[in-house]
Amino acid sequence: MSPTLLFYLSLQLLLALGVACVVCVCVWCKHWLGGFAWDGSSHQFNWHPVLMVTGLVVLYGIGAVLYRVPLTWGQNKLPWKILHATLMLLALILSIVGLCAVFDFHNHNSIPNLYSLHSWIGIIAVALFATQWVVGAASFLLPFSPPSLRSRIKPIHVWMGGSIFTLSIAACISGINEKLFFNGDYSKLPAQAQMANSLGVLIVAFGLMVFVILWNHQWQRPEVRPEGPTYTPVFQEENE
Amino acid sequence: MSPTLLFYLSLQLLLALGVACVVCVCVWCKHWLGGFAWDGSSHQFNWHPVLMVTGLVVLYGIGAVLYRVPLTWGQNKLPWKILHATLMLLALILSIVGLCAVFDFHNHNSIPNLYSLHSWIGIIAVALFATQWVVGAASFLLPFSPPSLRSRIKPIHVWMGGSIFTLSIAACISGINEKLFFNGDYSKLPAQAQMANSLGVLIVAFGLMVFVILWNHQWQRPEVRPEGPTYTPVFQEENE
Repeated sequence: MSPTLLFYLSLQLLLALGVACVVCVCVWCKHWLGGFAWDGSSHQFNWHPVLMVTGLVVLYGIGAVLYRVPLTWGQNKLPWKILHATLMLLALILSIVGLCAVFDFHNHNSIPNLYSLHSWIGIIAVALFATQWVVGAASFLLPFSPPSLRSRIKPIHVWMGGSIFTLSIAACISGINEKLFFNGDYSKLPAQAQMANSLGVLIVAFGLMVFVILWNHQWQRPEVRPEGPTYTPVFQEENE
Repeated sequence: MSPTLLFYLSLQLLLALGVACVVCVCVWCKHWLGGFAWDGSSHQFNWHPVLMVTGLVVLYGIGAVLYRVPLTWGQNKLPWKILHATLMLLALILSIVGLCAVFDFHNHNSIPNLYSLHSWIGIIAVALFATQWVVGAASFLLPFSPPSLRSRIKPIHVWMGGSIFTLSIAACISGINEKLFFNGDYSKLPAQAQMANSLGVLIVAFGLMVFVILWNHQWQRPEVRPEGPTYTPVFQEENE
């Protein structure tokens, strides 16, 4: 099987796992946790898992593998950079709204914020993500950022991206686990717990598929400029 | 700063974080959770966090970065392979004893096993680790395993190694979080919770340092055979 075909099959699997994660977390929050509202009640809390899984895991993971799509290789990198930054910005906005949902729910119900390890790991992940987005946009999108700065920052940006994703997965797993201990008798493994545990396994499977795609050197965007009439470089070092 | 000096500084930091993780988990279990025994009581449970953090995180992480040590590069790879396999076997044995501690504690106290998401992620991590060790030893240590098999399995072995480590970190974070919800009023963030939350942050920092070292291409063992009188190849494809 050719590397390109194998890549597209892996991407299909990744997207299917991502859709399954979003469907599962929505069904859990709608069917078992009572649905959605923005009124300080537990229904407001329910936006938290949905927005964190959709933003910080699924959209983030899809944004991370964008440059691996072979379709993007023979072309000017700038539109793909803008798409990468847009997907990541959307992921960041969803995550921040997801944090607002839980802070507001806590404040309405006199529950302290940021005491659990889940919340510490989650807030570190979102803070690093916001920093990563700002530094990434300033370094790789602003036309006057020097190429030497871009090539210095690129390995840190890639490593930091993987680290934030690892933190996001750890935050999601600990968050689902924590919520299930609050809700009924977890130890009897009722249908809700089976569903939410399966969501956790799906999140992990999605995360590992992202790492499969990122770690496969065959699927990395070639760092040489393609030749041909369709290629119009904008910046001197646009592969940075 | 030279890449070699930077590597050894990173390795020092990794080892310091590893020692801090082991000290922290021991102090937590000894000072706040009542110490250790093997009698079916909660003191038996206390072996579980100590052995999982020491085996599945710290020893595993040190074993994973072994081939990055430049000292090992100009030499026959076989002794380093044996050391890698030995460290990983020790990590696996500690993890399995750590699982026995919690299963035995549950069985003595009529607590169901394997219902929480923490336990699902943890048992998947240890099962994959055991499989990885057996397949790795059979492929890379047995002299009659063909070089073509080794080069096919190597990228899977590397990816699977990183995946198991990610699962281990997620399992540790969710486990510490879960234990603190069982023990007293977590939401007031007492000294025990501050200590155990800090342990979680240290585990994450250790994990990210492992990924820093593994992802830096400058620190990868060169896949060409060095020249010189000290080099004595044993197998035809000993870099596999």
